[in-house]
Amino acid sequence: MRKTFTPDEQAQLIAVAHDLAQAARAETLRHFRPTDGIGADNKIDGGFDPVTEADRAAERVMRDILARRRPDDGIYGEEYGVITGTSGLTWVLDPIDGTRGYMSGTPTWGVLIGLAEQGAEGRPAAPIFGVIDQPYIGERFVGGLGLARCDGPLGPRDLRSRTTAALSDAILFSTFPEVGTPEEGAAFARLAREVRLTRYGMDCYAYALVAAGQIDLVVEAGLQPYDVQAPIAVIEAAGGVVTDWQGGPAHLGGRVLAAANPEIHAAALAVLAG
Amino acid sequence: MRKTFTPDEQAQLIAVAHDLAQAARAETLRHFRPTDGIGADNKIDGGFDPVTEADRAAERVMRDILARRRPDDGIYGEEYGVITGTSGLTWVLDPIDGTRGYMSGTPTWGVLIGLAEQGAEGRPAAPIFGVIDQPYIGERFVGGLGLARCDGPLGPRDLRSRTTAALSDAILFSTFPEVGTPEEGAAFARLAREVRLTRYGMDCYAYALVAAGQIDLVVEAGLQPYDVQAPIAVIEAAGGVVTDWQGGPAHLGGRVLAAANPEIHAAALAVLAG
Repeated sequence: MRKTFTPDEQAQLIAVAHDLAQAARAETLRHFRPTDGIGADNKIDGGFDPVTEADRAAERVMRDILARRRPDDGIYGEEYGVITGTSGLTWVLDPIDGTRGYMSGTPTWGVLIGLAEQGAEGRPAAPIFGVIDQPYIGERFVGGLGLARCDGPLGPRDLRSRTTAALSDAILFSTFPEVGTPEEGAAFARLAREVRLTRYGMDCYAYALVAAGQIDLVVEAGLQPYDVQAPIAVIEAAGGVVTDWQGGPAHLGGRVLAAANPEIHAAALAVLAG
Repeated sequence: MRKTFTPDEQAQLIAVAHDLAQAARAETLRHFRPTDGIGADNKIDGGFDPVTEADRAAERVMRDILARRRPDDGIYGEEYGVITGTSGLTWVLDPIDGTRGYMSGTPTWGVLIGLAEQGAEGRPAAPIFGVIDQPYIGERFVGGLGLARCDGPLGPRDLRSRTTAALSDAILFSTFPEVGTPEEGAAFARLAREVRLTRYGMDCYAYALVAAGQIDLVVEAGLQPYDVQAPIAVIEAAGGVVTDWQGGPAHLGGRVLAAANPEIHAAALAVLAG
């Protein structure tokens, strides 16, 4: 059963999340679009998964805020690992989701902040609140704890996902055309053939577009908990559905299907399951 | 031989270009990210090339400005065709480059404004000035007539493209993974195998990233003059090189290779010519 919060507790959690996002925004922008190289190094031998100074600095500044303001909560972060808390709540931090986009100067990466009840072994349970922040555009999507809102260049707006019911009307996004393993790629290709339009390259921004009612589906594989916690909270608050490719929970990552509504979710699931 | 301009003439042309971009920014944003559908229709039977109201309205407002302030210049526009002028100059207008991105709510489409000497049959010659504007971000890249500048969320900056010399260090962009014909797609795939990172989905924003020194190569096929005139002017002003896939002129569109510098251009050309 989910924790309940008083209005004051909710307001404090939301305020802390905004402060985390604001602090990470400053740190990530400090190193964005350098004119003299970015000092990236490779986290995975042979792969291309750059971790920038910005990535680490942004997670440190968020952890500092949490240490002061939410010292009893746990932290599950991409760069600096797990802190098990005593409050039963865990903050899930991805300081730069989409490091390849960040390295390329695109406005499609984001800061992801999720809040979940603590699960087994310090892992997060399903999220109760999330923030997707795009620092360069100055755009922030929040969902959960009674909110489903975006603020950015067009001013504050409610988030409401689309009602598209047929795959033939749907817009599908994924970050890369090479989605996961060959088997996963084949399932994605089956779905891409059914939809109206398939596009790539948006990193976490694609999940924000589902919540904002602009696209219908995001399909990815090989994700980590910190990649999906915030998107799940934001999309569900806007009316969407996020599961794995079998319709089960996606809050620990892996294969993810994010959909604008239950109808288009069911239609996409049927194709992915093959 | 290229026309020469007095400083006053240059300043007037640049001012008009900014006014065009500003007017198009307002029109395109008026219809961006609707919450109730976008009223797109299909320009090409069986294809998916939506032309929105915004596309047409933005070109009309730019044509109105040119009729008042540059009545002797020609116009080569995507939506409303060609006006042959008497001044020897032609404005090349693409009110929304990346209509699929626009329809999906991404911040990767742009308003393209080129200025060229008039060529045969009302077509533009090589561009002398160009603007790439991203209205949602509020970001504008200009190049030519002595300028190579960007203004946006991080403030005004000079544009200077990268010095990357080896394909193994290069970042390559294209809008879709299915680049042109099967033959063209095979050439692109050869190049993608040689580079450090290949990404998709940026529309005209990828050309701006070359000029801004963030990526190294953009390869596309099947382009129109209004797709390339502004990018060519901006990239060349920043130190880059734009040609077709044989090293010839690209200002009338077709197959385009945009590169950050002559060395990486030569390396990519050798692979594309394969």
